[in-house]
Amino acid sequence: MSHISEPVSAQYKRAAIIGGGVIGISWAGLFLARGIDVVINDPREDIEDLVLAGLDEIAPALAELGLPTESLSAGLSFEADLAKAVADVDIVQENGPERLELKQQIWQTIEQNAPAHALLATSTSTIPATAIAEAMQQPERLIVGHPFNPPHLVPLVEIVPGKQTSEATVQQANAFYAALGKKPQVLHKEIPGFVANRLQSAIFRECVYLVAQGVVTEQELDDIVTSSIGMRWAVAGPFRTFHLGGGPAGLPHFIEHLGRTMEASMWPALGNPTFDDATVALLTEQADEAFGNGTVEELAAERDRAQIALMRALGETPDAGNTRA
Amino acid sequence: MSHISEPVSAQYKRAAIIGGGVIGISWAGLFLARGIDVVINDPREDIEDLVLAGLDEIAPALAELGLPTESLSAGLSFEADLAKAVADVDIVQENGPERLELKQQIWQTIEQNAPAHALLATSTSTIPATAIAEAMQQPERLIVGHPFNPPHLVPLVEIVPGKQTSEATVQQANAFYAALGKKPQVLHKEIPGFVANRLQSAIFRECVYLVAQGVVTEQELDDIVTSSIGMRWAVAGPFRTFHLGGGPAGLPHFIEHLGRTMEASMWPALGNPTFDDATVALLTEQADEAFGNGTVEELAAERDRAQIALMRALGETPDAGNTRA
Repeated sequence: MSHISEPVSAQYKRAAIIGGGVIGISWAGLFLARGIDVVINDPREDIEDLVLAGLDEIAPALAELGLPTESLSAGLSFEADLAKAVADVDIVQENGPERLELKQQIWQTIEQNAPAHALLATSTSTIPATAIAEAMQQPERLIVGHPFNPPHLVPLVEIVPGKQTSEATVQQANAFYAALGKKPQVLHKEIPGFVANRLQSAIFRECVYLVAQGVVTEQELDDIVTSSIGMRWAVAGPFRTFHLGGGPAGLPHFIEHLGRTMEASMWPALGNPTFDDATVALLTEQADEAFGNGTVEELAAERDRAQIALMRALGETPDAGNTRA
Repeated sequence: MSHISEPVSAQYKRAAIIGGGVIGISWAGLFLARGIDVVINDPREDIEDLVLAGLDEIAPALAELGLPTESLSAGLSFEADLAKAVADVDIVQENGPERLELKQQIWQTIEQNAPAHALLATSTSTIPATAIAEAMQQPERLIVGHPFNPPHLVPLVEIVPGKQTSEATVQQANAFYAALGKKPQVLHKEIPGFVANRLQSAIFRECVYLVAQGVVTEQELDDIVTSSIGMRWAVAGPFRTFHLGGGPAGLPHFIEHLGRTMEASMWPALGNPTFDDATVALLTEQADEAFGNGTVEELAAERDRAQIALMRALGETPDAGNTRA
């Protein structure tokens, strides 16, 4: 298979993907396209069929991102025994169920069997590395490498060290995901939901409120977002946006004027909806109206094509750094 | 001057822009580029210089959007007398100070002097049309046409009818902004902040919290947003995103699982920051670090270029509909 990114595949020749669900398959596809051999560890009997079907599904997006996809599965193998799966790898990316005890068990087995140089990362979106590592003998080796779904496409990886994670592990994780073509971001503190999901959660609460109040429909709200803040935040985040909205004096001026108004009158007025029966019924009905014209798979493929076009326009496809002068 | 969009300039030959600040100038530039003559009403003595300088500043962005900018000022005039300014126009777009009594006075004068067929719109972001129209004899004619700043560039216009605004006025406003190349969205209810600013406000509260807590810096938070949710929401809004994140069963499945977890554990944990001295000092210091490498004007121009590239990639420049087959 092709090895277009020597810096990655030179140091990382072999990866263990623990858990072959949607996230695991997406990681596997990206690793394989980057020239890293992948061994999948997953107890399900039909795991091979699931993974191969999943790889077929994401291959078009990988190709549009400019990555080689001709013989992805050539570097793929399966190993149902966790200890054996991690015995000879350079990175372990774990995507198991979000249950603390299970993750603690898994990681005890991994640290006892993976090579000493291997990067040990969990994709968890909810469990701090500190908690998982309590059951480990080398807690300094474990780190959260939380992708934004799907990992093969969305650039962000939140790197969240636990209290005992070593600085060397942080640097190793940061360098690895960057070499993969991702945009890793190291958080300075563990916090539930990390950053991206907290922000999503904050805006979604108000989205649900506005639809439940009958101010807009789901489709109308989505159209408002894509044609304003979404388009803005794809090129400049909220702080830069408000800095640029503050006039020549920037963010400090924005805070003194609009920021204080926001705090005094807008924040207290934000909604506090609940998923009661009426709200769920309304959201379900409007989802059917707005998104009922295609399967989730079709709509996702359409969205992903648009996103790749956007990434190309911004020079943010994984190999933009390699292909530009 | 060029008239590339006959449907707009055929019905709307002349506009009055009330208030020649940043928003007024941006509207003026867009109207002029669309072949609509513009009369500016603003009491300031140096208003001509301000507007001409402002038009020079936004002309490059208009040109990159594919609009003609050769002799924008040929269709421009100034009239300090409000009654005279609106006497012979097809649309009034008011961008005065956000003070209710002042707006009520302005609109009483406008409705007494503008032609009966003219579209009467206010750019207000905070005052409901219902309140302004209390002082009008024809309250059915007034409507909010709230742009997302800057109006010449960001597609969204929130159309917010007041309690007495007629359906004919709603339709007229919707058709006008659509013909201008904008993406108008009619809200079903008046609500403080309308939709886009409420959503911005909701996410910004959590942004301030995460920076104040030391989880990330402003620059890091912005990078997280552009490389994940911003990029996503430029092509699919929050509801579509979660519909596609819900598996084959879509949004209802998402709500039953992640939505309920969000309600139970994430929403209550979101931050409630305040702009106290320490927070403002931190935000100011980090803004200087993150954005101190250019003037606001330079950084805004850079952001706008990136955004136009994104809009082109998505086929969302104003004339994409005209230029595509």
